[in-house]
Amino acid sequence: MTLLDEYYRKRTQLIADDRALRVDAVNGDRFSEKSRQADVILRRIREEEAKSIWAVEHEEVPHPFPGMEFLTGKDIILKTQLFNIITKMPKGALLHVHLDLTVNGNTLLALALQYASIHIRASTRVTPDSIKSVELEFRPLPPSFVPQCISLCLPTYKPGQWIPLRRAREQFDAALGGTQAFDRWVASCLTINPSDAYITHNNNIRIWDKFRAAATLTRNLVYFAPVWRAYIRQFLEETFTDGVSYVEARINFSPKYMIGSDGEENVPHKEWLSMFQDVLVEFNGSLRAQGRDDEFIGAKIIYTVIRNCEPEELEWYLNDCIEMKKLFPGIIAGFDLVGDENILRPLKDYLPQLLSFSTLQTSQGLPEHHHIPFIFHAGETTGDGSIADDNLYDALLLGTKRIGHGFSLVKHPKLMSMCRERGVALEVCPISNEILRLTASMPMHPLPILINHGVPVALSSDDPSLFQNMGLSFDFFQVLAASNVTGLLTLGHIARDSIQYSMLTADEKARATLKWEERWERFVDEIVEFDGVKRN
Amino acid sequence: MTLLDEYYRKRTQLIADDRALRVDAVNGDRFSEKSRQADVILRRIREEEAKSIWAVEHEEVPHPFPGMEFLTGKDIILKTQLFNIITKMPKGALLHVHLDLTVNGNTLLALALQYASIHIRASTRVTPDSIKSVELEFRPLPPSFVPQCISLCLPTYKPGQWIPLRRAREQFDAALGGTQAFDRWVASCLTINPSDAYITHNNNIRIWDKFRAAATLTRNLVYFAPVWRAYIRQFLEETFTDGVSYVEARINFSPKYMIGSDGEENVPHKEWLSMFQDVLVEFNGSLRAQGRDDEFIGAKIIYTVIRNCEPEELEWYLNDCIEMKKLFPGIIAGFDLVGDENILRPLKDYLPQLLSFSTLQTSQGLPEHHHIPFIFHAGETTGDGSIADDNLYDALLLGTKRIGHGFSLVKHPKLMSMCRERGVALEVCPISNEILRLTASMPMHPLPILINHGVPVALSSDDPSLFQNMGLSFDFFQVLAASNVTGLLTLGHIARDSIQYSMLTADEKARATLKWEERWERFVDEIVEFDGVKRN
Repeated sequence: MTLLDEYYRKRTQLIADDRALRVDAVNGDRFSEKSRQADVILRRIREEEAKSIWAVEHEEVPHPFPGMEFLTGKDIILKTQLFNIITKMPKGALLHVHLDLTVNGNTLLALALQYASIHIRASTRVTPDSIKSVELEFRPLPPSFVPQCISLCLPTYKPGQWIPLRRAREQFDAALGGTQAFDRWVASCLTINPSDAYITHNNNIRIWDKFRAAATLTRNLVYFAPVWRAYIRQFLEETFTDGVSYVEARINFSPKYMIGSDGEENVPHKEWLSMFQDVLVEFNGSLRAQGRDDEFIGAKIIYTVIRNCEPEELEWYLNDCIEMKKLFPGIIAGFDLVGDENILRPLKDYLPQLLSFSTLQTSQGLPEHHHIPFIFHAGETTGDGSIADDNLYDALLLGTKRIGHGFSLVKHPKLMSMCRERGVALEVCPISNEILRLTASMPMHPLPILINHGVPVALSSDDPSLFQNMGLSFDFFQVLAASNVTGLLTLGHIARDSIQYSMLTADEKARATLKWEERWERFVDEIVEFDGVKRN
Repeated sequence: MTLLDEYYRKRTQLIADDRALRVDAVNGDRFSEKSRQADVILRRIREEEAKSIWAVEHEEVPHPFPGMEFLTGKDIILKTQLFNIITKMPKGALLHVHLDLTVNGNTLLALALQYASIHIRASTRVTPDSIKSVELEFRPLPPSFVPQCISLCLPTYKPGQWIPLRRAREQFDAALGGTQAFDRWVASCLTINPSDAYITHNNNIRIWDKFRAAATLTRNLVYFAPVWRAYIRQFLEETFTDGVSYVEARINFSPKYMIGSDGEENVPHKEWLSMFQDVLVEFNGSLRAQGRDDEFIGAKIIYTVIRNCEPEELEWYLNDCIEMKKLFPGIIAGFDLVGDENILRPLKDYLPQLLSFSTLQTSQGLPEHHHIPFIFHAGETTGDGSIADDNLYDALLLGTKRIGHGFSLVKHPKLMSMCRERGVALEVCPISNEILRLTASMPMHPLPILINHGVPVALSSDDPSLFQNMGLSFDFFQVLAASNVTGLLTLGHIARDSIQYSMLTADEKARATLKWEERWERFVDEIVEFDGVKRN
């Protein structure tokens, strides 16, 4: 053996050792030969499109590159064959998504316009000068409410006056562009725009302001009982269409009541869940009618509370969560605290309450196998040793089953091995992280570090109405841009494992995995077949 | 013990376990009690200034934050007490710096103006319209050269005509701002500006264009024998003034000759090194005269070649490097290949040559203890499995003593443990990485990952003339912004260890470390004393 041969032998071995912890190495023999062929095809397409699509200039997108800022690059992504293929991939479970931030602004506005009781108000009269800075608010009002004005644009409009939404739309100043402009304007307030994320609010502290504004604005439309039902249905349909077969969605239960069809805040949590359950049953029914019920496993809810309440207040929510679990044992999948970790309360503030949650559940009569697991947000930060980063210690010590984000986990060797050993998956939300400016682009994202170190991950979308990443295709696509080592097989492992990291029972997981595997085989068959046809 | 006490005991243990690989944990008892007090003081100042300086708005710097883009935040850094203290810290060794990119544009221009033979030319006549886009070039010319024009700004100026630099400066159009404007303009072409890095060239592919342009422009001024001497002296003085006591500088030996005082390309490599050695002797002499020679250990050279030559051509350089080592055994510290790893040749292309370098040295009569180690650039990229990233495998397999950058090493668990076990330090250049857009800010930089995983690091400045980070104070400062866990003690460990990771002999290291420790004690004494005075 020559010196060079010997060198190459060592080199191959070193690379294999270095990648030995990756999910696609550990489970190397999991997939069929067809899967491997499809992987090769996808790598070839990725390489070709890096040159033919990403290396050329596009109108209004100077200097694009794979994994660039999502809101700017999205139109280019939509042109790729790679994305087209990913849309057809069976995605498994979507495990990190905030239900009230899932349906895009246009659709939400269309839903809202169905209800005469929904009103709008503005912080000032809307004019060509004020339209970019005016603050909006929505609210369903009781039938007894008598509006004092019919347009946001009239000189007589007084800041804060409520106007029926439909009326405000019809009467929107023609000089501003009329109803079409109204629709565009409202939709843009319900999302994060490229100029917010990449220019005016281009850092993690500032972009949260924009995030909070859009989220707050959305709330009064979504947490309105009639919209709530339609909204959930819309979310399930869109998610299912993108190839997701199971969802664990987070609902913010901090408000104790939702607004009912009478315009009053009087719909309690149990009604929220009851409506959720009803929609789920309806949705399953319609799938059954299409003979597609096999493709959908179901949806559950993670009970969440904003991490700004007093520790004593949390006790009410923990009790309420238990109560909901008793009423909807098949729906409640976990408990979590949410909101900007950098400025709100750390998990540590709630230790007495969280440490006794298990005992509380037992004393309230929940059998052990029905105990509600923690599925905590933690480490959604670029910090090291900051309060947001330290949440990782507490999340793991408190026995979290998964970690929401865990963006800063890569800074913690001991916690990384704990996640690996305990099978605690990180709900990684690549596009969310990039838009919230934890990373400037996908190649800078820590995901390849996690994958190469064998930390389990489940890809998630977080807040698709704000980030415009409905379903999981966009997030899976961005992952392919972050690493040459990662390919279709890696995505397959991640999708398949998402079911394992869900809160389904062992039986449900086995069934869901089997269904996923059937769909996966059809998916890779199609890639290989189509490629063969194209090349002949 | 209550449930909560027990929890806190576990929590403290977990955090300690998680941080056990850090240099400040491994060598926890290395420093004095005074050092610990100084560390506490610095943490307090950092926290105070995060509020008093970074959380307020500054003119022309909207929304500053610690660790923000260096070229934008530099003026704010200069206002902090934290930075003022860091400037006084003994820094140890500077192990990654490209000698020809160390002295700032203004000083270099002033040096160049001392020589009548240096000429300038432009790609077009310089006018208010063209000045922002015109391309410049410098070159010393022989005395026989007769210029055809006296100003870059005259209507008669033909693109590409050489004009004596002094004359071009004197005759610079008053309407453009005269000589002062000329100086500002030339200096700006010799550096990277915030608008290049953060607006027009804001990604790693584009910013390299700007990098190459400024580096190319610099070359003909620096690689001119009379300037060369003065340049090295200037570099040593500025570096020493910032508290650095030892340097291993990279010199680009790709050009086989430097331009001599006669304007001809006729100064061979051995003269470059001979001049380097002379300057070093002079510098040491002047330090001795000031009674400060104890503070300076010396300087060595890493022989580098641009990674675009043919593999066969490399043989000439390897032989030349051996030749230089024989002539200057105390100066040549290592061998390296440099240039943008993403587009130039990978180490792999040179395997036959690099693998036989050791045998070649023996056959050329170099005794084993004088063999020239590899100190390779590798992984200066955001890639994972890209050719630049794969250089890490080859650098380590080829036995590199340190790694230049290793930005992508965090993606490689096996290589991380190899570095840890073999004591292979990463020459981490935080400011360089940020300006070259591998990271968007310090909190996103992988350095805390490396430190927490116990990978040895040596902080370096890379190309201070381009990045405006002369010395090491700015880079040390930025490190403090990237992690709450890292404090003054961590910086002390890193500075002290930089001597261990140098190519000094064991005896030299022992002496240098002793000297460093004496200076460190004086440094922390001063912090504690000054803080005591201020608070009383």
